[in-house]
Formats: sequence, structure tokens, C-alpha cells
Amino acid sequence: MTNRRSALSRPIDRQTNGVFVICATPFKEDGTVDHDSLARLVAFYIGHGVTGMTILGMMGEADKLDADEQRGVIDTVLAHTGDLPVVVGVSNPGLTGLSALTSYAMDKGAAGVMIAPTRGPAREDRVEGYFHAVCDQIGTNVPVVFQDFPLSTGVPVSPALIRKLTEDLTQIVMLKHEDWPGMPKLTRLRQDEAERETPRLSILCGNGGLYLPQELQRGADGAMTGFAYPEALVQTVAMHQQGNPDAAEDLFDRYIPILRHEQQIGLGLAIRKYILMKRGAIAHAGARAPGPRLSSIDAAEIDRLMRRLEAKLAA
Amino acid sequence: MTNRRSALSRPIDRQTNGVFVICATPFKEDGTVDHDSLARLVAFYIGHGVTGMTILGMMGEADKLDADEQRGVIDTVLAHTGDLPVVVGVSNPGLTGLSALTSYAMDKGAAGVMIAPTRGPAREDRVEGYFHAVCDQIGTNVPVVFQDFPLSTGVPVSPALIRKLTEDLTQIVMLKHEDWPGMPKLTRLRQDEAERETPRLSILCGNGGLYLPQELQRGADGAMTGFAYPEALVQTVAMHQQGNPDAAEDLFDRYIPILRHEQQIGLGLAIRKYILMKRGAIAHAGARAPGPRLSSIDAAEIDRLMRRLEAKLAA
Amino acid sequence: MTNRRSALSRPIDRQTNGVFVICATPFKEDGTVDHDSLARLVAFYIGHGVTGMTILGMMGEADKLDADEQRGVIDTVLAHTGDLPVVVGVSNPGLTGLSALTSYAMDKGAAGVMIAPTRGPAREDRVEGYFHAVCDQIGTNVPVVFQDFPLSTGVPVSPALIRKLTEDLTQIVMLKHEDWPGMPKLTRLRQDEAERETPRLSILCGNGGLYLPQELQRGADGAMTGFAYPEALVQTVAMHQQGNPDAAEDLFDRYIPILRHEQQIGLGLAIRKYILMKRGAIAHAGARAPGPRLSSIDAAEIDRLMRRLEAKLAA
Amino acid sequence: MTNRRSALSRPIDRQTNGVFVICATPFKEDGTVDHDSLARLVAFYIGHGVTGMTILGMMGEADKLDADEQRGVIDTVLAHTGDLPVVVGVSNPGLTGLSALTSYAMDKGAAGVMIAPTRGPAREDRVEGYFHAVCDQIGTNVPVVFQDFPLSTGVPVSPALIRKLTEDLTQIVMLKHEDWPGMPKLTRLRQDEAERETPRLSILCGNGGLYLPQELQRGADGAMTGFAYPEALVQTVAMHQQGNPDAAEDLFDRYIPILRHEQQIGLGLAIRKYILMKRGAIAHAGARAPGPRLSSIDAAEIDRLMRRLEAKLAA
Repeated sequence: MTNRRSALSRPIDRQTNGVFVICATPFKEDGTVDHDSLARLVAFYIGHGVTGMTILGMMGEADKLDADEQRGVIDTVLAHTGDLPVVVGVSNPGLTGLSALTSYAMDKGAAGVMIAPTRGPAREDRVEGYFHAVCDQIGTNVPVVFQDFPLSTGVPVSPALIRKLTEDLTQIVMLKHEDWPGMPKLTRLRQDEAERETPRLSILCGNGGLYLPQELQRGADGAMTGFAYPEALVQTVAMHQQGNPDAAEDLFDRYIPILRHEQQIGLGLAIRKYILMKRGAIAHAGARAPGPRLSSIDAAEIDRLMRRLEAKLAA
Repeated sequence: MTNRRSALSRPIDRQTNGVFVICATPFKEDGTVDHDSLARLVAFYIGHGVTGMTILGMMGEADKLDADEQRGVIDTVLAHTGDLPVVVGVSNPGLTGLSALTSYAMDKGAAGVMIAPTRGPAREDRVEGYFHAVCDQIGTNVPVVFQDFPLSTGVPVSPALIRKLTEDLTQIVMLKHEDWPGMPKLTRLRQDEAERETPRLSILCGNGGLYLPQELQRGADGAMTGFAYPEALVQTVAMHQQGNPDAAEDLFDRYIPILRHEQQIGLGLAIRKYILMKRGAIAHAGARAPGPRLSSIDAAEIDRLMRRLEAKLAA
Repeated sequence: MTNRRSALSRPIDRQTNGVFVICATPFKEDGTVDHDSLARLVAFYIGHGVTGMTILGMMGEADKLDADEQRGVIDTVLAHTGDLPVVVGVSNPGLTGLSALTSYAMDKGAAGVMIAPTRGPAREDRVEGYFHAVCDQIGTNVPVVFQDFPLSTGVPVSPALIRKLTEDLTQIVMLKHEDWPGMPKLTRLRQDEAERETPRLSILCGNGGLYLPQELQRGADGAMTGFAYPEALVQTVAMHQQGNPDAAEDLFDRYIPILRHEQQIGLGLAIRKYILMKRGAIAHAGARAPGPRLSSIDAAEIDRLMRRLEAKLAA
Repeated sequence: MTNRRSALSRPIDRQTNGVFVICATPFKEDGTVDHDSLARLVAFYIGHGVTGMTILGMMGEADKLDADEQRGVIDTVLAHTGDLPVVVGVSNPGLTGLSALTSYAMDKGAAGVMIAPTRGPAREDRVEGYFHAVCDQIGTNVPVVFQDFPLSTGVPVSPALIRKLTEDLTQIVMLKHEDWPGMPKLTRLRQDEAERETPRLSILCGNGGLYLPQELQRGADGAMTGFAYPEALVQTVAMHQQGNPDAAEDLFDRYIPILRHEQQIGLGLAIRKYILMKRGAIAHAGARAPGPRLSSIDAAEIDRLMRRLEAKLAA
């Protein structure tokens, strides 16, 4: 399988940092994927300075797309991202489907894939066995992001298991850190790297970025989340990396009210898409059914939070 | 949409009874669907006297098949079932996919579709709204089986909700009853029909059939489960319907040891496929990854239980 | 049972509003209840203007106290609250214990009791039956707060069930609203009161108060939560009630960074107790084992957030 | 702490085997503990040949008893068990209560205590830390049974963690094995002992004994469960230990229909107490509220299963 990745794109690795925005999947009013909006959304994200992008995640409603639609999303995004690294969510109940989508994505030039543990008993031997099986199947040259999101998957894991997996499977190069509460886990992982010579892992934070300044101070490398104001994440991470954590947090705190509003499991997707629509990034805000729907009260509430943010930024 | 169902096949309705066996999906050693074995398995089930068949259920590993493979399974099964009613599991995280598979199945001559509540908060208003959205989408002429399997879906529901759904959505004609413990629920549903003039619902029992005689005595109409000795279910239901519950239970009890062995969530699928292979119904017993794998100890244990059953039946 | 409630104290009812702070239970270093700190904490809360108080909630570590200790906490708190209404959490795996604690609390002058659904299948008929059994057992003259906290109990409920319970059991006068996301539920409940003549329910918001301004705008009557800066809740609710929602939200938003930090399920209790200790309200911050423990990094992080808040308030 | 254990009783250890019946807690009609029935029940169990007894387990409704009642149950049982080893369930949300009950039980002559992981995230580091904290607190001379019952606790664990705990904490001498499916785990533990020189663990099987013959064949040392026909467990284990697994299984299989009926999570407790009442072992079958209640249909169904068993045994 030659020509696996374009000359322009760079795979993610254990040093990757910055902001990988989680990309929504826009739909037309008839429910089909809106590729024009998707291209516009990619431009919106790039225009706001993101380092990379993650597509077909939970926020991308990947499980409601069939395999053809998933490939279509990959095609459109990779046609518009140039050399920007793109991670593709490939979680799937079956390894056959996971592996097929991984091959497709990597052949098209993806920078890596993101995988969460499948549903099932939260026994750590099961999760360990699963990631070994995954890596066997997709091949050792595919960089993998471990998505640690127990509130959604129902499968919490210990830092020791993450460490063991990243030692045994060197292609697992990044953690999407969204356990909650998760800050002690983040510190534990960084301390292990310092004390036990565990190989370094890139850690990008999810959970809407709700604790991003604290997480950066504890050693995170950036964010991987879908906040509809990605510039806030970009600037926060940049200022922190420039050695100015206080200014980073001052900036970030202005966005907290609306960020907290987005951070509502389930409903948050609809709120984000609504804001993206209001900001002109996509044409329609609707999620695929069964998905959250906003009432006029919900929408007015978001409008108000947006106006309050704009007033604060203008002050 | 003319020619929606062949002249031969009969849709399920609220009087449907008997044994609808849950059909496994056999795979070849290379992991692809084994259509030869599938045809053989259908013949095996028909040879053992089943009333109908349910394909693409959880035991059919439907969530590990892509849309093309799911359609392939429908094609093969419907090509070999003649006028036997076939129910197709169409559960899907998205309504788009659910609806597309439903249309395909009904056009090909399925007798109905089976749908479980999607994962999410077990709020009954959510489940109610979901089934209304489903029925809106698939059309009112498609008979629906409500799969009530909380141990797997994480979404338990009250008998009152089942009653309300079956009153408001008359196309929900059947309950796959596999709440556990579930017998008081079954009794409640039958009492409501008697006392409140709630429309009658066909109730077929899942959970491997572990409580089938008791459930028949409480008013169930039969079984919908994947026990690898379907003849036991067929004979038990037949004897019960002929007014001989004691003989039905005597017969059934001979099979309990191996039936109980199959009834192990997760592992049970591998056990059933192994027995089906030993009985000559399929060529390979393997489940798709990530799925249960049997050790040589597991296999020897099943062999022993099969020998014990055969000895008892021969006595 | 004469003299059930002192002349000074007022039971909660369906019009109750304001801020009922959730009271922590302080422990000495040897692990016993620290009654001196508890008295000091009560004075701290009263000094910050709370309307009422809720003791022996989840944040009060009630399930780690034995019955004698629970009664001791009631005694100390009621000795120091004068005519301030005090709600007592009485959730218990058994009705016998729940009922005994309720009698004790009401005899001592509590204003009502708070009860969450017991763990178990999230079937709404089970929850409905449970609250009927509870009310039968404790007597119809005890005002009850329904604690709706699915993230902790595992038992989500529909607005329709809350409405039905409050119609059938008129002693359920208040909802501790902490479903998440929960704002559409709050709006649904208020709309039902307007449209269906459902009796009004007092709604106080939990979840740390993370969405308090939005919830007030949707019709909540105040807060019932344990934020370690109760004055922020008090002022927010007061300004909102005075018809100034923008000023209320401006004030509230200054506290969001630290409020969001407290709002970490499990860990939050330790953070709150640490802040209460730093603010001089209790002597020791430790929670009973097995409970969260703060590392020096965790503590330094809170110190920093406290300094940032103080600087912002001083500006 | 002298005189910690009477001269007569023997602590459990890693060689312990046989049948430790899980003892129900009988109540009078007024809801108080029925100590007369409890004494009678102990005699019933002893008369049926049990090796030991476990009290205050989940089936003993321990979480619905207050601390005084729990001590009362210990007193009554230990007054009637002579030198029979008695294990006391001491699981408690707080270590203070767990430790106090452990001291009481061991001082009175218990043979050990049984502890399940507390509810919370199923991270194995949390479970590991919890058992270290427990053993620190109760002292190293108290033999501990690890109760592995994920269907009830929500906390599944890997065999590797069980092995690690039993290596690091030598006082954990026994596993109450009731993961489901659990047979591969049992085999894994026994293989580790053979291959890795892991210290041997006594393994007694729960889950109603539903797979007891298979589990004995895989190396279990007996049963710890509450089947209302304990003589079936006793005889099955004895025959197996005498080298006659086929006869053991033949005997066991006669009881499967009613054993399977008892094995209904939640409802099972009520079924067992009803059978114990019918067999004359206790006066009243009621469980404490909120607990399962049998309808007349439920009772008639059990009566029928009992008659069928008696007929089979008489044949």
C-alpha cells in the first residue's frame, strides 16, 4: 500500500501540541450531509488558527453516518485542509468496520485515527486486549489517539493502564483526555513520565475545554474539543506556551459562561451547531435524529449568551 | 412503493405466536459473512419447526456488519425462507440508517422490524418520543417489535409505557420480552389487556428462553430467542398450546442445563455458535471481533453438556 | 406527636424560594464529627445571608455517618439556626431508617426532608411506587423535597413523572433540580403549570449552581447547592428577584471559574471543604474515607483560583 | 484486643472449602428483626449440612439494617452456630462504619468479613486503593472475602487485579465469585496459581449457584450463596470432592428449575424467603421496604415449582 499519505501532511506523534478542533458534521434540511457547509466550516476553523482537526468524533455524529457518508466526510475535509493534520474518529462496534475506515482515512492522508474503548464491562483486561486487537488489525504504522471519555463510553480506565498501553503499543501517541474529574489523572501521567521514564504521551484536552487553563498548567499539550469559539482555545494555548499562564487564563475566563453552556452532554452538540450557524460557519444547525433539538427558548438563551460575550470582548 | 411484500409472506400482528428463532450470522474464517452457512442455518431452523425467524438482532452481530453486509444477510435469508415470516432487527444509532434498512427489508418481503430504544438516559419521555419519531419515519404500515432488553440497552421501561406506546402506535404489534426479572411485567401487561381494554400485544420471550414455561403460563405467546436447540422451544410452546403445560415443562426442563449455559451475556453468543457448528448447522463458530472467544476448556465444557443432554434425551 | 415543630421555624412549601445552602459535615483529624466547626459553619452560612440550609445531603457525606452521628448533626445545626428553615436529607436504602430519621428531624424542628430515588432499575413505575411508599410511611404532614440528581443516583425521570408525583402527593413541595442537562426539563415543568394547571412546585437548583442565572430566567426559585461562596448565590438570586437579571448574571459570572472548579463530581466535595477551611468556616478539610483527597498540586491550584477571584472582586 | 476470637471457631483461610450459605434476615410482620426465626433458620442451615455461614450480605438486606440491628443479627447467629465458621458482610459506604462492624464481629468470634468494592468509577486503581485502605483500617489479622459481584456493584474487575490484591494483601483469603459470565475468570485465576506461583485463593461461588458443577470442575472450592435448598449445594460439593462429578451434576440438575427461578436479581430475595417460609425455616417471608413483594401469582408459581421438585426427588 504505497502512497499512503500525501507529501504535505504530517502524522501526529508524541510531541504534537496545539488545538485540534473537533469538527461538526453539517446536514442539509433534508438530512443529507451538507458538503458545502463542511468545506466552509473547515475554512472557518483554519481561519481561527487551529493546529489540526478531528473529524467523525462523537460530536461529528459519526455513528449516525453510514460507511459511504463517513468516507464522503473524509474526502471533503481532506480536500480543504492542505497540510493541516487531520485525525479521523474510527470507533466502531466491529473491528472490520474500524479497520476499513482506518485504511481509507490513512490512504487519503489522515494524520492518525482516534479510538475509544467499545462498550462493555469496564474490566481493564478487556480494554487492554481490545487495543492490542485494534493495533494488530490496523497495522503498526497508524498513529492512534486513545479517547478516554468515560461519561460517554461507560468505561473508565486507570492511569496505569494508559501508561501500559502506551509502553506496549508505541503507535498510541496521544490521549484525548476527557475523564471527569480528570485533573489528578493528568498529573499522574505526567509524573510517571518524569519518575518512571514512561514514554511521553501527547495529551490534548476534551470536555469542551472546561478546565483548559488548569490542564495546561498540569502539563497538557493543548485541546481537542469542539468549542464553537475555537479562537479562544487557540489563544489560550498560545499564551500559555509563550509563558504567560495568567494572561491565558484571563482571556479564557471571558469565554467560560458560554463554554459552560455548551458543556451539556447531549444538548451541547445542538448548542454548538447553533452557534456555528449564527457565526456563519454552516448553513443549518440541525443534528440527525435522534438528536437534540433546540426550542425557541433555548435559542434565545444562546443568543443572549453570545451578545454578552460580544459585549465583554468589545469592552 | 408498490410490490412491498411478496404474496407468500404474512406480516406479524398482535396475534402472532409460536417460536421466532433469533438467527446467528455465520462468518468464514477470513471474517466475511458465510452465506452458504447462513442458508444451511435457515434450513436447520426450518427443519426444527420454527414459526418464524428474526435476523440482524444482537445475537446476529448486526452492529458489526456494515449496511451492505446487512442487506446481504436479508437477501440470503429471504431467499430461503419461503413464506416463513422474517423479522429484521434494524436498531441503529441514527434514524436515517434505521429507516433505510427498514425500507430495504420490507421491500424484500420481511414480516416486520425489531427496534430497541437507543442508548441514553432512561427517561421514559425520551423512549416514548423516540418510538414516535421512528414510526413517523418508517411509515405506519411497517409492523414493529419493541425489544425490551434493559440488561443490554441500559434502558428499562415501565409496563405503562409499553401499553401507552402500543395504544398510540398501533403498528407496534409485538413485544420481545427480555426484561429480567420480567415475569411481573408480563403479568401486568396481560392484566391491563383484561381490565383496561388495552389492545392485545403479541409477546414473545427472549433471555434465551430461561423462564419459558413460566412465561407461557403467564400469557406469553411463544419465544423469540436463539437457543441452539430450537426444537426444544418449538415443542414446549406446542405442548403448552395443546393444553398440556406439565408435559411442556417436563420436556423443557431436560434442556435447562445447557440453556442456562448459553444464557451468559456476551459469552452466550460464542457458545451458541459453537453448538450450531457441532450440530452441523454452520461451518465456523467464530464471532466477529471484538467478540467472545472460546478456550479449549470452554469447548470441552460445552461438549460435556451436549453429551449429557443427548444421554438424557436417549434415556 | 405534639410539639412537632418549634414556634420559630416555618416548613417549606410550594412558594419557598431563595438560597438553601447544602451544609458540609466537618470532621476532626481523628475522623469524628467536629461539632464546633459545624456550629461555626452554620454561622458562616447565616452570615452570608442564606435563606435556609440543607443538611445530611450527599455533600454532607450522610451515607458515611451512622444513625447516632446523623442525629448529632441535626441537633447541632438546629441549635444554631434559630428560625432559619432546615431541610434534612434522609435518603436511606431502607424505609425503616428513612422514616426514623424523618421523625427525629421533624420532631426537632426541621422544615422538611429531602429524598432521592433509591438505586435500582430506572423504571418510572418503580420510582413512583417508591415515593408513594415513602409518603405513606413518614406521614402526610412532612414536606418533601424530591432530589432529581441522575448523575449520582443513576435514576433519571421524566418531567411527567415529577408532575404526577406532585399532583398525587401534595406533600412533595419542592424539586432539587439537578438533572444535567436539565434546563429543558425546568422549562417543561413551568410550562405545565401554566398550561395544565398543574400545582406549582418550588424549584431550587443544584449542580453547584453552574447554570443558575439561566435557571432563574427559566423560572427557578433559587438555589440549593453547596458552593463555598454562598454569598454569590444569595446576591445572584436577590438581584434576579429585584428584576435585574443582567446585573445578577454579571455578578455571577465573576464566580464561574471557581464554581466550575468545584463542580467536579466526587472531587468537588474535597475542593469545597478546602475552600471553607481557607475561609475560616471549618477547622479541617478532610472528608471521611473512602473520599477524595487533595494533593499539594490540587491545593495550590485552588489557592490560585481563590486569589484570582479575590483580585477580580477587588477590582 | 485480647480474646478476639473464641476457642471454638476457626478463621477462614486460603484452603477453606465447602458450602457457606448466605443467611437471610427474617423480619416480623411489624418489620423488626425476627430473632426467633433467625435462630430457627440457623438450625435449618446446620441441619442441612452447611460448612459455614455468611450473614449480613446483600441477601441479608444488610443495608436496610441500622448498626444496632446489624450487631443484633451477629449476636443471635453466633449464639447458635457453635464452632461453625461465620463470615460477616461489612460493606459500608464509609470506612468508619465498616471498621466498627468488623471489630464487633471479630470480637464476637466471626471467621472473617466479606467486602465488596464501593460504588464509583470502575477504575481498577480506585478498587485497589480502596482495599488497601480497608485492610489498613481493620488490621491485618482479619481474614477478608472479596465479593466480586459486578451486576450488583457496577464495578467489574480483572483477574489480574484480584491476583495483585491477594499477593499484596495476604489477609484477602477468599473470593466470592459472582461475576457473570465468570467462568473464564475462574479458570484464569486457577491457571495463574499454577503458572505464576500466585498464592492460592479460596474460591466459593455465588450467583445462586447457577453454574456450580461447571465451576467446581474449573477449580472452585464450593459455594457461597443463598439457595433455599442448601442441601443441594452441600451434596453437589460433597460428591464432587469425592471424585464423582457426574453424579454431582446429576443431582444438581434436578434442582436447576427452581434454582434458576430464584436467580432473578432483586426478585430472588423474595422468592428465597418464601421458600424458606414454606419449608418452615422462618415465620414470615416479607423483605424490608423498599423490597420485592410477591403477588399471589408469583406465590402460586413457586408452589408449583416446589411441587415439581418434590415429585422429582421422590421419583
